[in-house]
Amino acid sequence: MDLNNNVDFIYTDWSLIETRFDPDKIHHRETVFTIGNGYLGTRGTFEEGYSRATPATLLHGVFDDVPIVYTELANCPDWLPLSITIDGERFRMDRGEIISYERKLDLRRGILSRFIRWRSTGGKTVDLQFERFASLASEHVTALRCQIKPVDFDGLVEVQASISGYPENQGFNHWELIDQGSISKAAWLNLRTRNSRITLGMGLGMNVSGAEASVIVTNPPGYPTVITSFQATSGQAVTVDKLVTFFTSRDVENPVQAAQQELADLPQYSTLLKEHSLAWEQAWDKSDIAIEGDVRAALAVRYNLFQLLIAAPTNDDRVSIAAKTLSGFGYRGHVFWDTEIFILPFFIYTQPELARNLLTYRYHTIGGARRKAVHYGYKGAMYSWESADTGDEVTPRWLPPNDPYGEDIRIWCRDREIHISADVVYAVWSYWLVSGDDDWMRDYGAEIILDTAVFWGSRVEYSTKYEQYEIRGVIGADEYHELANNNAFTNRMVQWHLEKAIATQDWLREKYPEKAKELETRLQLTLSRRLRWQDIIANLAIPYDPNTKLIEQQDGFFKLEDINLADYEPRTKSMQTILTIEGANKRQVLKQPDVLMLLYLMRESQEFPYTLEILEKNWDYYAPRTDITYGSSLGPAIHAILASDLGKTDEAYHNFMQAAMVDIEDVRGNAHEGIHGASAGGIWQAVVFGFGGIKLTENGPVATAHLPQGWKRLQFKINWRGDWHEFDLKAEGTNMETLHNSNSNIKGVIFDLDGVLTDTAEYHYLGWQRLADEEGLPFNREANEELRGVSRRESLLKIIGDKHYSEEQILEMMERKNRYYVESIENISPKDLLPGALDLLEELRAAGIKIALGSASKNARPVVEKLGIAKHIDVIADGYSVQQPKPAPDLFLFAAKELGLAPNECIVVEDAAAGIEAAKAGKIIAVGLGPSERVGEADIVLPSLENVHWQDLQAKLTDLILQPS
Amino acid sequence: MDLNNNVDFIYTDWSLIETRFDPDKIHHRETVFTIGNGYLGTRGTFEEGYSRATPATLLHGVFDDVPIVYTELANCPDWLPLSITIDGERFRMDRGEIISYERKLDLRRGILSRFIRWRSTGGKTVDLQFERFASLASEHVTALRCQIKPVDFDGLVEVQASISGYPENQGFNHWELIDQGSISKAAWLNLRTRNSRITLGMGLGMNVSGAEASVIVTNPPGYPTVITSFQATSGQAVTVDKLVTFFTSRDVENPVQAAQQELADLPQYSTLLKEHSLAWEQAWDKSDIAIEGDVRAALAVRYNLFQLLIAAPTNDDRVSIAAKTLSGFGYRGHVFWDTEIFILPFFIYTQPELARNLLTYRYHTIGGARRKAVHYGYKGAMYSWESADTGDEVTPRWLPPNDPYGEDIRIWCRDREIHISADVVYAVWSYWLVSGDDDWMRDYGAEIILDTAVFWGSRVEYSTKYEQYEIRGVIGADEYHELANNNAFTNRMVQWHLEKAIATQDWLREKYPEKAKELETRLQLTLSRRLRWQDIIANLAIPYDPNTKLIEQQDGFFKLEDINLADYEPRTKSMQTILTIEGANKRQVLKQPDVLMLLYLMRESQEFPYTLEILEKNWDYYAPRTDITYGSSLGPAIHAILASDLGKTDEAYHNFMQAAMVDIEDVRGNAHEGIHGASAGGIWQAVVFGFGGIKLTENGPVATAHLPQGWKRLQFKINWRGDWHEFDLKAEGTNMETLHNSNSNIKGVIFDLDGVLTDTAEYHYLGWQRLADEEGLPFNREANEELRGVSRRESLLKIIGDKHYSEEQILEMMERKNRYYVESIENISPKDLLPGALDLLEELRAAGIKIALGSASKNARPVVEKLGIAKHIDVIADGYSVQQPKPAPDLFLFAAKELGLAPNECIVVEDAAAGIEAAKAGKIIAVGLGPSERVGEADIVLPSLENVHWQDLQAKLTDLILQPS
Repeated sequence: MDLNNNVDFIYTDWSLIETRFDPDKIHHRETVFTIGNGYLGTRGTFEEGYSRATPATLLHGVFDDVPIVYTELANCPDWLPLSITIDGERFRMDRGEIISYERKLDLRRGILSRFIRWRSTGGKTVDLQFERFASLASEHVTALRCQIKPVDFDGLVEVQASISGYPENQGFNHWELIDQGSISKAAWLNLRTRNSRITLGMGLGMNVSGAEASVIVTNPPGYPTVITSFQATSGQAVTVDKLVTFFTSRDVENPVQAAQQELADLPQYSTLLKEHSLAWEQAWDKSDIAIEGDVRAALAVRYNLFQLLIAAPTNDDRVSIAAKTLSGFGYRGHVFWDTEIFILPFFIYTQPELARNLLTYRYHTIGGARRKAVHYGYKGAMYSWESADTGDEVTPRWLPPNDPYGEDIRIWCRDREIHISADVVYAVWSYWLVSGDDDWMRDYGAEIILDTAVFWGSRVEYSTKYEQYEIRGVIGADEYHELANNNAFTNRMVQWHLEKAIATQDWLREKYPEKAKELETRLQLTLSRRLRWQDIIANLAIPYDPNTKLIEQQDGFFKLEDINLADYEPRTKSMQTILTIEGANKRQVLKQPDVLMLLYLMRESQEFPYTLEILEKNWDYYAPRTDITYGSSLGPAIHAILASDLGKTDEAYHNFMQAAMVDIEDVRGNAHEGIHGASAGGIWQAVVFGFGGIKLTENGPVATAHLPQGWKRLQFKINWRGDWHEFDLKAEGTNMETLHNSNSNIKGVIFDLDGVLTDTAEYHYLGWQRLADEEGLPFNREANEELRGVSRRESLLKIIGDKHYSEEQILEMMERKNRYYVESIENISPKDLLPGALDLLEELRAAGIKIALGSASKNARPVVEKLGIAKHIDVIADGYSVQQPKPAPDLFLFAAKELGLAPNECIVVEDAAAGIEAAKAGKIIAVGLGPSERVGEADIVLPSLENVHWQDLQAKLTDLILQPS
Repeated sequence: MDLNNNVDFIYTDWSLIETRFDPDKIHHRETVFTIGNGYLGTRGTFEEGYSRATPATLLHGVFDDVPIVYTELANCPDWLPLSITIDGERFRMDRGEIISYERKLDLRRGILSRFIRWRSTGGKTVDLQFERFASLASEHVTALRCQIKPVDFDGLVEVQASISGYPENQGFNHWELIDQGSISKAAWLNLRTRNSRITLGMGLGMNVSGAEASVIVTNPPGYPTVITSFQATSGQAVTVDKLVTFFTSRDVENPVQAAQQELADLPQYSTLLKEHSLAWEQAWDKSDIAIEGDVRAALAVRYNLFQLLIAAPTNDDRVSIAAKTLSGFGYRGHVFWDTEIFILPFFIYTQPELARNLLTYRYHTIGGARRKAVHYGYKGAMYSWESADTGDEVTPRWLPPNDPYGEDIRIWCRDREIHISADVVYAVWSYWLVSGDDDWMRDYGAEIILDTAVFWGSRVEYSTKYEQYEIRGVIGADEYHELANNNAFTNRMVQWHLEKAIATQDWLREKYPEKAKELETRLQLTLSRRLRWQDIIANLAIPYDPNTKLIEQQDGFFKLEDINLADYEPRTKSMQTILTIEGANKRQVLKQPDVLMLLYLMRESQEFPYTLEILEKNWDYYAPRTDITYGSSLGPAIHAILASDLGKTDEAYHNFMQAAMVDIEDVRGNAHEGIHGASAGGIWQAVVFGFGGIKLTENGPVATAHLPQGWKRLQFKINWRGDWHEFDLKAEGTNMETLHNSNSNIKGVIFDLDGVLTDTAEYHYLGWQRLADEEGLPFNREANEELRGVSRRESLLKIIGDKHYSEEQILEMMERKNRYYVESIENISPKDLLPGALDLLEELRAAGIKIALGSASKNARPVVEKLGIAKHIDVIADGYSVQQPKPAPDLFLFAAKELGLAPNECIVVEDAAAGIEAAKAGKIIAVGLGPSERVGEADIVLPSLENVHWQDLQAKLTDLILQPS
């Protein structure tokens, strides 16, 4: 798997930056750029609207009926639409010309921004700066700002800011329009869900500054719109702020009135932004994880935590986090074990109030769990595999075919994936253990633990043949096996659950005897039930062989047909898709860890069957049989932790990054359906429990760091029984101040592109020549030599010489030359790699040396892709990366930083004098390619990369260091 | 069942008039007021829009994917929205006050109009006259006109005319917005279906006349809108015309361009209307049925034919008529046997080109039928029970539960209701027989007949035990039995089909030997297949007992548990709902005719097993066991024809009206889902084949009329082999000129309301008194006596006397008094009936006397409802019915006409002098109630209705006639 398949991203410590608008990726990027505030989530859809866009704003708890999956989170009216018309032509990136583009998610402040310089088909150039946020300080408020600055014209600009009352869940609109209207210069909208009858009130306001602007409100049915228009002047920015408020009948009596009132009371945009930023500062103060030495990982970890923080309900304990958070339509907003087992630890340890909200949801929905138990003929509370507003089972029963003659596929999870009840209890227990919140345990947790224990008492069967208790006909954690008897994960979790149930009852009796009595009466916790629990604990089948130390995943698993996953590589599909459902059922292939998942859950408390030895034996057996790449996204983070425990650092890091990048880089190809919430939660556990090695002792948490290669420092906090514990872990032997400049220390190579890896210098020359000829400027190959490594603007200025041109003309010429160049590089292919380049890249790769590109070109990315070397390059620093061009050192320093390396851990390979100068200025060893008159200033001079090997270079570097400087 | 449950309708020969806006009935009325033109259908949604409205515009063939039912007709953008703002207040009938209201569907010209006098909450009164049509002359064009006339103010009026690009199929929006824009003062919209990728272009234009009006175009996403605003002046009408064009990629290469062009080329509204009216005149010239003597039936028959005419594709032979036409979402636009068996005869006999289009659809979709055969393991073509664009089977397989623990219900029609293939062939054969269209038969029909015969050859099984061919495991016409062996209907239809297949092959060989050869090769019509067909014809099980003449519906039917449907009365649900699916399966209860359906289909050609004797025996057995009221809507019309054949005239008429009113009066409670197309088709057959008794002879069609009671004349045309045959049938012994005025001839009683049936005279008095007191006008009980039977305006003028009031003041006072009155009558209940009234009404009812109300009051309908006597009254003539008030005779004459009676067949019962005078003027016998000084002019004077019986009245009438005049 190529994890670095999104070369149009730049990763910095706190920001995810998209450098290119790619219409084919809009659905993926809508998920990636989701923002939210724990009340609502909004996908990263563009304000101006595109045909196939899938905008979504999802509010916690706003469910409505739908066939097959029973209920789903209803997509709410889209608050983003902002249509900008420049002198009669509507701004859309698929028309006209994008001159520059950058979209940035600022994780630290929860702000999504976008800068575009766009030229209309009519030739008007405009700078547009968008910015949006969902206020973390005022959860009913969202805000959007757009700054509009004409570059080369004066003219009429019109901006329409709307709420679209026609949102859709994959085509379905859950809303009925009740009414709409306007008050002074604001509009409002009042809607109601079709079936659940939840009303939603929204307010819409607009402020314009920087121009004399008219503001009018129009009210096409379902589409309240505020329109402003103004005369814009070249070089002068006009700012349009759009403010939107949301209230539902889940929040207040009269939502539309509340939305109007809130809107009327709002402060200025800048004040809202300040309050919002402050709230984020406070959230990160508790929840941040800082990683030094691996900027990609550092960003990815923060990204995943960000997505969890915006999904957690701040003021509502009747909702929980859905499998896809509030970021997409996948799994319809339903809640799975993903929340309790994967996501909750992050909140338990860093935001315990949010963890409490999430767990209290299970208390409020216990009625649904009881109805489910009754339906299946059991007692107590049987939690639903998929749960929504009421807790009733909402897992679809059938997957309907599309083809008129296709067959429906029966989905068995609702009936059989019963471990969910123990999973909920595992989370309840963890929360209690870590928070020490006895009040909550007494009022909420205990009832959950005990009534689900009652369920197990009715679900477990006794086998007279084997004289043991059994749990038959289940799906375990591994969903490739759809009808398992005595699934090890399920059985041990049930046993563990019953142990905790007895402990809970004892604790209650001791500490809160009245509550104990009340629950014993209401839940019928008779003595005979308690004795039966003890009997089950003692006699429940756990298929563990003390000789081999192997735990058999389920009855007969080891007798299933064996499999060698390598036989199926390379693949891009799950093993179930390849083998069919039936084929997977009868083979020893796992969708995700099952026995290993059990060991992971028992690891922290060192309970049976966890020992390092058992882990080792079972890892060796199960890990190779687990479809970790295309099975469940829940697997990789867990494998990362266990591999880390077992000293398999590379494998751990690989699994970890697979999980960390699942959404940003769309590792599984399904990120458009929404954020992988469980994977995000697993990331926190992998860093803190895995790489940080946090273990709970009687005196609180202690760390034993196993940092991945390259990580220099890892910092995070956790809360243990009300106290904060801060951890600042450094790589063993790492001391940044005392790093020596020795060749053994070279960990990265930064290549210039043109003239080094390929010969686009020729294409540049041809582009400049054509331009110069058209403008009647003197230019030739010799003059071209002067342009090596020089930025586009500087190059042009050199060609122009003394002749006078206006700024506008200069911009036009730069773009003209670029157009010629871009046209000519369309045909670049791997054949255009310079001799020796590919061999050296591959050698470096094999030697574990990181590779960056450091090119002044703004076309570096497409060129690298066309050359087919994108997969060899870790970081691209290009014409968009820094302000100061070579010979300033900025570009190479940026590249080094992105590689996670100090400058003295890198070398630069350059063919231009300006580039050599830049490297020297950055205190980076420079390798010059070409004649001495050009690159003589370099530390090492070579004619080209032909026949240059890493070993030779290393030798030269060693020589260099031994030489007196 | 109360067929007359819609007292807010007036029926005239050609118009259906709704007299009241009832928000609870909007979905039903949207269906009822559907208009269309064979290209599209548009439900009768109000232009101004209401929360729970279900607007729909459905275009033939525009299908798109959807789960469960595979594909459905995609609701297209709503072209109706017209929002009118009167001095800042938006017109909506649920705010402000409706002063008068009338909606009219003019069937003759295909125009839906509405007149409202509305007063805003701000007190501004305006007359609005809406008119809309889908041009029958230019199928891509729809038009809407609104005339706006302020009654009592001058002010600003704004009109927004939009296309809503957010149509929905019960919440689901099938469309993606591609683009939109405007050209001069017109807007356009370009959309594409999500899955089937059909593009739709629409144009929107507006013309305003009668005021200086600005027109601007705005384009909120998906909601192109043309806005006009103008200063309106009291008493002066301004006319706004909205014109819309539609093209899809099914029609042209570039739909949006075509829509723009068509819009640009359109003539004036008035010209469009003229062309449209002319096209309707031509259509009715062929297809009309005129009935005299029963205005309700006359209107209903035309209404049903209208609904069929607007649903039939004029220029497209790749589509057919869906079960719910283009008028609603029921059955998702899928095509059933409803078209071939129920609807087609109307077209075959009156619009053969349309019939050909509909049948050619089956030819174009034979590929789907072949795929279905392959899927089920058979040969040839197996038509789909539900068919859409491709002919593939689109019957849903499951009915999913709503409740999370409910069970899905398996729907077996796709697998088992196989008679559809024979039904299609029945229609092909009928078309050929009637039209004599040999070319079509050669090119299309023959292949359908023969390839479906191939299917039967593979579907029929041979039973060695019984030495016969059998068809096992089917659903017959009666869908209450879901797993039948040797269903009589299916087996005989298959046998008949194979007979026709052999005849077709012989005919082809004889007449078109090359085509015969081509088909024989392509369809593999081997000799062995033909011999097998013959063998099947000879040996297929047809469970007929020549002794009893009974045909057993299926193997073992007579052994099922018997049922007495009367035991379940009264009921409002189907027997299947009452008994459950399983319960109905095991009883002798039918959803709809099955054996009787077979007899009906074989009746015209007098083929086996049809004889009148067999019909009689089987009617007596099956009719009482058929759930004709709440089973299938396909049943009543067929029962009506057979009952008519058997001389059961009353039953025939009852069944006929049940079918005729199924949509207008929502007899089954499901008319909101769309027009019952099959029932509408059945109506034509019931009138022409049943009451008209049309039989085909060698010399063409001949009639033997069995007109229902009261029908004086029945006229229609049919086309037989290219020639038109006109029929003008009169009731036996009916001679309108020679009807005598004898008491035996009294067939109807027309009651005044106030002072006769109830005492609202007192409420009127109180209303007038209050008004008079407020205005300081002299008035008392004595003066009130003068107002009996006098219209509201005349009453007021009497009270005012000489005093001067402006017209506006008069209008206001009339409404004020009415408001007082309406407030006071809110509490009327059956207790308020005057003594004797109810007894007399029931006696008249029992004696078969028709009853009308003839009241000047505009509140007559609500009063009648509150009194609980609506079910006793056939016709209501009220303040809306005629222009001239009593003492003019118009109201009573109107009532008589509506009853289908001559004036001399009626008597009037009145308490007011003006009423007696009106009756006399209309030459209607008058019964006066009250003192002689008031009603002495009456023919018969009685103190009140107390203790008045029909027998006594009859006696007095006889006396009267014997008296010298």
